[in-house]
Amino acid sequence: MDEEAVAVAPNGQEDAPTGAPLPILDEPDKPSIYAATIDDIEQAAGRIAPHAHFTPVQTCRSLDQLAGSRSLFFKCEIFQRTGAFKFRGACNSVFALSEEEASKGVVTHSSGNHAAALALAAKLRGIPAHIVVPRTTPQCKVDAIMGYGGKLHFCEPTMEAREEACARVQAETGAVFIPPYNYGPVIAGQGTIALEFLAQVPDLDALVVPISGGGMISGIALAAKALRPGIKVIAAEPAGTNGAPDTALAKMAGWVVPCARTDTIADGLQGRLGSLTWPVVRDLVDGVVVVDEAEIVNAMRLIMERMKLVVEPSGAVGLAAVLSPAWASGHVTRECTRVGVVLCGGNLDLGAKGFWDMWLPKSQQAQDED
Amino acid sequence: MDEEAVAVAPNGQEDAPTGAPLPILDEPDKPSIYAATIDDIEQAAGRIAPHAHFTPVQTCRSLDQLAGSRSLFFKCEIFQRTGAFKFRGACNSVFALSEEEASKGVVTHSSGNHAAALALAAKLRGIPAHIVVPRTTPQCKVDAIMGYGGKLHFCEPTMEAREEACARVQAETGAVFIPPYNYGPVIAGQGTIALEFLAQVPDLDALVVPISGGGMISGIALAAKALRPGIKVIAAEPAGTNGAPDTALAKMAGWVVPCARTDTIADGLQGRLGSLTWPVVRDLVDGVVVVDEAEIVNAMRLIMERMKLVVEPSGAVGLAAVLSPAWASGHVTRECTRVGVVLCGGNLDLGAKGFWDMWLPKSQQAQDED
Repeated sequence: MDEEAVAVAPNGQEDAPTGAPLPILDEPDKPSIYAATIDDIEQAAGRIAPHAHFTPVQTCRSLDQLAGSRSLFFKCEIFQRTGAFKFRGACNSVFALSEEEASKGVVTHSSGNHAAALALAAKLRGIPAHIVVPRTTPQCKVDAIMGYGGKLHFCEPTMEAREEACARVQAETGAVFIPPYNYGPVIAGQGTIALEFLAQVPDLDALVVPISGGGMISGIALAAKALRPGIKVIAAEPAGTNGAPDTALAKMAGWVVPCARTDTIADGLQGRLGSLTWPVVRDLVDGVVVVDEAEIVNAMRLIMERMKLVVEPSGAVGLAAVLSPAWASGHVTRECTRVGVVLCGGNLDLGAKGFWDMWLPKSQQAQDED
Repeated sequence: MDEEAVAVAPNGQEDAPTGAPLPILDEPDKPSIYAATIDDIEQAAGRIAPHAHFTPVQTCRSLDQLAGSRSLFFKCEIFQRTGAFKFRGACNSVFALSEEEASKGVVTHSSGNHAAALALAAKLRGIPAHIVVPRTTPQCKVDAIMGYGGKLHFCEPTMEAREEACARVQAETGAVFIPPYNYGPVIAGQGTIALEFLAQVPDLDALVVPISGGGMISGIALAAKALRPGIKVIAAEPAGTNGAPDTALAKMAGWVVPCARTDTIADGLQGRLGSLTWPVVRDLVDGVVVVDEAEIVNAMRLIMERMKLVVEPSGAVGLAAVLSPAWASGHVTRECTRVGVVLCGGNLDLGAKGFWDMWLPKSQQAQDED
């Protein structure tokens, strides 16, 4: 769930600092060239099969009832390696490189799930992964990246510094840059979620996918619409506080309207549509359901209480959308009765001391450090 | 995980008030008559199959490493209906009743997982379930029992009051009393866990089972030893604070030594060995691994962080045992390399306001009531 919180310019370079307006990515009458084909996605499935998990689909009677007697099917990407769907795209990207390209390693700038996923994928291929992380990255995330064998390069916490550090590592090592979402092989890798999901539950009416930079929903939409043209693909997006939900805005306007970045507890969903993802979202995504912070927390809680699954806030946004009044009333969504929900990440930060202290007797609290 | 916190006298009546010493249940040279046979357990499997989930087994590479390169297999009873293994025993008990017996309904005194399980089993058979609950029972548990259709009878929070209320309901309604563990059909129902587990992972060396009253481990030991006599069955028991771990003590002494009840965060594991469970534990359980409170919390956290599964503290005690120094050094346990761990319950009380508030921005905290 680490869609990086950056905007992406038409040239595919991630370049917008925090809060900067989004550039206009294309004109409505420009022909679309999508970043991945169904063939690319099927190749990706074969490429990642030796490494990635074919994740299970789970159901839950009581959530079906809460969703107005719809049948919900949850694709458990929380069980994917590194705890999030990101491993699919990173793994496909790393194993799609030629021997020569791969020999110099890979590099990205990220502090979250994409970084951990790239580190593991590179480790599995036996090549170095250089990860540029802001100095302000929480220790738990740094530990995760190191745990998967990533080589850390710290930089100042600005987009300029990240890109500069990333370029320096590329220049010094010859490593290949693997962006978190605005990149064909990443999009094709994420699309394998839909191949599996439709094999597991062939008669879905709709797929609900949390959106950020749009890598996951682009891959899923490209695969799902190729296999089942009638299926609805719905983006679930946090309204957040301050700022605006840029996907909902872009879909309404028909172009990527500049707007301030929103803050949300779904910290994995602060990315921005990219030059490769926007055309897919524009053409193949049937609707956007926007949810507020309380709806996200409620969905997290329901998933933990009723399904016994740990999801990060971003991972709960899909269920939040299905349970929202907007879903029940939306003219595309309200007719959908067999709904596939992607539980895309489970890397909840459980380091908060207060949580674990709840379980220990007073005498034993706050002795363990982590 | 609601083994009731009571001791059980030789006549099978639950009768010991909090803190009372345990009675001596039998003499070492008395012939053993076990509460269930492998046939009973196989019949139970057929009886509950239309209603209970055949729960999945999950694995986790990083936990295997932490366990000294053992292969761990987790039986996910957290996904069982009502969120705990208790549904198996309750369902078998309810559906084993004759039409005439069942017609008057069932009754138990419990405030936890057994109560919810009995309520759902009775609802599925279309008969009433009377649940005697102490007035001090937390609202979330009362809600769960009502949610499954149980008829609540409140009483004072003493064992005498519970039994008196239970007897009164029996007299007034003719309902059949279904004890939480010291009861053949409950033990046979819990034994179906082992039938499934050994079908899913045939070559296990050992099964680790959290112990309280001993209903679950008795059923599992009876089934597992019948199918694979060489398998080790290990009880995982909280040391707790104050009091003593009575199963470890009983196994060492060869009889159920009177001791004060222990307090533990594994609140589902405060039951006492019963007249039907002790003979099985005495004869068929190969060892007891005692874990402390910090080990239980650590195991909970690992299960949530690494496996993305929600367990209640009692449900994490099995993993805590496998990760403990006692496991690595114990002469029975240290040789076991393919270990089945029962994640027996996932009904963590997530109602604590502090936990959910962590995720909301300050402005939205403490507005939702539950």
